[in-house]
Amino acid sequence: MLHEIPPRSGAAFTLDKGQRLTVIDPQGEQVSDLLAFARHDIDEVISSGRTLDYLSRIFLTVPDPLYSNRSNIMLRIVTDTVGRHDFLLTPCSKDTFRIIYGDTEPHQGCFGNLAEALAPFGIVPDRIPVAFNLFMNVPVDGTTGELKVLPPLSKAGDHIVLEAEMDLIIGLTACSALQSNNGSFKPIHYRID
Amino acid sequence: MLHEIPPRSGAAFTLDKGQRLTVIDPQGEQVSDLLAFARHDIDEVISSGRTLDYLSRIFLTVPDPLYSNRSNIMLRIVTDTVGRHDFLLTPCSKDTFRIIYGDTEPHQGCFGNLAEALAPFGIVPDRIPVAFNLFMNVPVDGTTGELKVLPPLSKAGDHIVLEAEMDLIIGLTACSALQSNNGSFKPIHYRID
Repeated sequence: MLHEIPPRSGAAFTLDKGQRLTVIDPQGEQVSDLLAFARHDIDEVISSGRTLDYLSRIFLTVPDPLYSNRSNIMLRIVTDTVGRHDFLLTPCSKDTFRIIYGDTEPHQGCFGNLAEALAPFGIVPDRIPVAFNLFMNVPVDGTTGELKVLPPLSKAGDHIVLEAEMDLIIGLTACSALQSNNGSFKPIHYRID
Repeated sequence: MLHEIPPRSGAAFTLDKGQRLTVIDPQGEQVSDLLAFARHDIDEVISSGRTLDYLSRIFLTVPDPLYSNRSNIMLRIVTDTVGRHDFLLTPCSKDTFRIIYGDTEPHQGCFGNLAEALAPFGIVPDRIPVAFNLFMNVPVDGTTGELKVLPPLSKAGDHIVLEAEMDLIIGLTACSALQSNNGSFKPIHYRID
């Protein structure tokens, strides 16, 4: 069964150990922020810092594992038709739109959408860490350290598949930031097998 | 008054808004992991994801601000004689030494030292995020995304000064990972003005 996350919104759902989550970019050039929490103890959460350290790499693809703050593997990338995702940045928020875009009435962003979707699971906004930002294209200049948010490399139908290595709560968005999506808001599709 | 953090240990202390924290590498090539929590609400914590996003850069120096998870400025770098610090990696831990170094009886690392030092302030280990790793030299290959932990660029006496923009609890270490310090364990000095 295919689920649709409408543009500029988010969803949260459980994923059992051994299940596979397929996230599809149906139109191309759209970003989806992914969060993971251990279902049996929500204080265990996806960790960019642990993952980048253990992989010695900022760009992830097949067969890389995603670690928690307790150094356990939460998910593993088993299929990836894009090969470029971001694991440096926090989900866009009201403050992102205020600080980076200068919006006076800012959208709640992926952060607000994730907070709303995760609330029924008892997860509060302060517990939202750096997300694994699927399809987000953030190259880094190795000399200056400058980073840029460029259009995703994903074409219509591109997808990534992650297999759960523990019982999880997943947060997932169709991203709300113009810069991340090459200037237009699009849906995200996902499937659980 | 100069404080010494002995090799492979950590400290925690309060820093008032307007006070300046000077962290000195007395012998050179030593790393110090820095954490910051809002004193009046410890759920507000230093955020690499927010800071890198707002600065559009992974390397920080004067006069860069360090943001919290709530997008408030916690600290600002006002002096920096080194110019290379890391904001990608989580403090080294028992798991770091097990996974990266293959140690069978691993040291508790900066993570364990920070957890111990921060416990009296009510801060639990799961609340330790990506640290701002002073003097840590982690270049990133912009093409492959590969990161390396190289010897710090700091010489004996080099230092960084951070000014608090809110009342804070600070965690600070003399790093415990051989790779970060070019193979030897050294102290860190700090001063509050």
